[in-house]
Amino acid sequence: MEAKSQSIMADSYAMNGGDGPYSYAQNSMYQRGIMETAKRMINEEIAMKLDIQKLSLAASEPIRIADLGCSCGPNTILAIQNNLEALKRKFQTHPTPEFQVFFNDQVSNDFNSLFASLPELGRQYYAACVPGSFHVRLFPTASLHFVYSSCALNWLSKVPKEVVDKTDPAWNQGRIHYTGAPKEVFEAYSDQFAKDIGSFLQARVKELAPGGLMALVIPAVPDMISHPHITTGSEFELVGSCLMDMAKMGIVSEAKIDTFNLPIYYTYPKELRQIIEGNGCFSIERMDILNIPKQHIAMPDLRQRTLYIRAALEALIEKHFGKKIIDPLFEMYSRKLSASPIFLNPENQKTTAIFVLLKPI
Amino acid sequence: MEAKSQSIMADSYAMNGGDGPYSYAQNSMYQRGIMETAKRMINEEIAMKLDIQKLSLAASEPIRIADLGCSCGPNTILAIQNNLEALKRKFQTHPTPEFQVFFNDQVSNDFNSLFASLPELGRQYYAACVPGSFHVRLFPTASLHFVYSSCALNWLSKVPKEVVDKTDPAWNQGRIHYTGAPKEVFEAYSDQFAKDIGSFLQARVKELAPGGLMALVIPAVPDMISHPHITTGSEFELVGSCLMDMAKMGIVSEAKIDTFNLPIYYTYPKELRQIIEGNGCFSIERMDILNIPKQHIAMPDLRQRTLYIRAALEALIEKHFGKKIIDPLFEMYSRKLSASPIFLNPENQKTTAIFVLLKPI
Repeated sequence: MEAKSQSIMADSYAMNGGDGPYSYAQNSMYQRGIMETAKRMINEEIAMKLDIQKLSLAASEPIRIADLGCSCGPNTILAIQNNLEALKRKFQTHPTPEFQVFFNDQVSNDFNSLFASLPELGRQYYAACVPGSFHVRLFPTASLHFVYSSCALNWLSKVPKEVVDKTDPAWNQGRIHYTGAPKEVFEAYSDQFAKDIGSFLQARVKELAPGGLMALVIPAVPDMISHPHITTGSEFELVGSCLMDMAKMGIVSEAKIDTFNLPIYYTYPKELRQIIEGNGCFSIERMDILNIPKQHIAMPDLRQRTLYIRAALEALIEKHFGKKIIDPLFEMYSRKLSASPIFLNPENQKTTAIFVLLKPI
Repeated sequence: MEAKSQSIMADSYAMNGGDGPYSYAQNSMYQRGIMETAKRMINEEIAMKLDIQKLSLAASEPIRIADLGCSCGPNTILAIQNNLEALKRKFQTHPTPEFQVFFNDQVSNDFNSLFASLPELGRQYYAACVPGSFHVRLFPTASLHFVYSSCALNWLSKVPKEVVDKTDPAWNQGRIHYTGAPKEVFEAYSDQFAKDIGSFLQARVKELAPGGLMALVIPAVPDMISHPHITTGSEFELVGSCLMDMAKMGIVSEAKIDTFNLPIYYTYPKELRQIIEGNGCFSIERMDILNIPKQHIAMPDLRQRTLYIRAALEALIEKHFGKKIIDPLFEMYSRKLSASPIFLNPENQKTTAIFVLLKPI
């Protein structure tokens, strides 16, 4: 069995727990929109590509599904329900197998909230959860039949070390993300993403049973704007600029900002295809850009957009800068957002997501 | 799939979470002693009784182990490690399989603490957790190879309804447990225990693979003192008498006490054997009384004995009576304990535990 990831940051990635006003559960409508859009594709792919003969389930063997990077919100429960129904339709002419669903996320994820939101009655699967980084092995060999991961692989296993190294050309001084940074910073992020996807695929290909499928939904930018200066990262750039303003006001030190970077990367279709093909573990059965609702539709007001970014980033920022700066930071963020014609114009929102269906080679 | 237990109390059974001074993790040395004593028996039984041929593992199929009612402390990690080593010794002359361990407890158990205490390096198994009551199905059919449960089956799925029914002869007025109560109260508890063990065994016999084994360690009293008036329950009787004193002082109402009962039962070997044999799902391969260290050795001082009972009961009491009474209640408990020659005399501690090894019929 492989050693677990030793990344010192591994535990700080979890979304805000609970179901309070700042929780991820209450502020993941945008991810919900992505999930809904991917649903139809998953249904089609399971219907067409799942090879029941090749799965060759032993007598009484359940279908095992994993949701990797499930977080703690209701989205995972809905997504799993959809995947399960698609799988059941596939088995219509066979004896219906039992289902076992594994919810995976970082150790620090709020699993207790997740359990509390599991349906009590009418649940058609046995539920289990698996804590740990999905960049290493999590499951026994050939034990999974359908793997799903939505809005999780954009989180890197760690911040690339070059970007916090003062002596490196990729040192990311005065910023917390690669948007607006020299190309070396972007390249360091891009390299880390390629490594992470590589280790993810290598772990999964061992865990998937022959005939199994993996559906990934990965937040991304279109190929044509893969250049770092105009990517989605720009809302992160805005958070960074708030932090720099706070540095000028003496609330945080610039040195502290220089050692903080968001472990988030938005890939683009060309790059993702290259990484998967280069890795050689899986064949790409389908790759599509999701036509997802723009952020301003999912989050029509300023408050919601602020809560959305806060639910995702609060734990990371608090761990590095302390609890005190959270409220003033996001108040400043909200003010800057409201004053910005760029951020409020829906046409400038370039986020998309890639749907990719993979089969072990 | 069977419906989940609808017991309204099901969620209040978890031990105190975290690792603070009142936590179960810090106050379960007594349970540790029981576990250590059972270890040798488990090792012997796995060596002698596990039938590798009958298990007939498919290629690459892992050995699946479950710890039912694992709680959140370090005891479960140690117990699983021992079980796993015993299983590995058994497979010495075969290719060593992979292992997958399922930690089960109530939804409200502090799973996050459990995950945090999982060894990062050198862990020889894939870990998962399964939230929910073990009185219903938790796992797919024939999917487990070794089931273990220690110090958990003494917790009933619910308080028998008769004991809170004013019109029933088993109404348990002015007490919170069956010690010192009319025999109808004891019988209501005893009936509930029989039902619970019955549904536990029926769920497990479906989940165990042919050739699998189940080792249970159940806190109990010896046959000769199975009469309720002199059982272990007496420390609970002391908690009850503190509550009644608080009622006299006007801090809680007597009516509130009358609707509160501890869902805990101490069986005795004869009864347990009868239930298991009557159930007909499992054959008893071994049943032994554990020669466990007396409480005063595991918990030499008053403070530790108070913390021990507090770690187990606090969540239940707080849910019914509110947070405020917890500190004064356990201060009073500690004072009463220190003044009691009965409770301080080790000879009066009748607790024991039964080790039982079961094979599906």
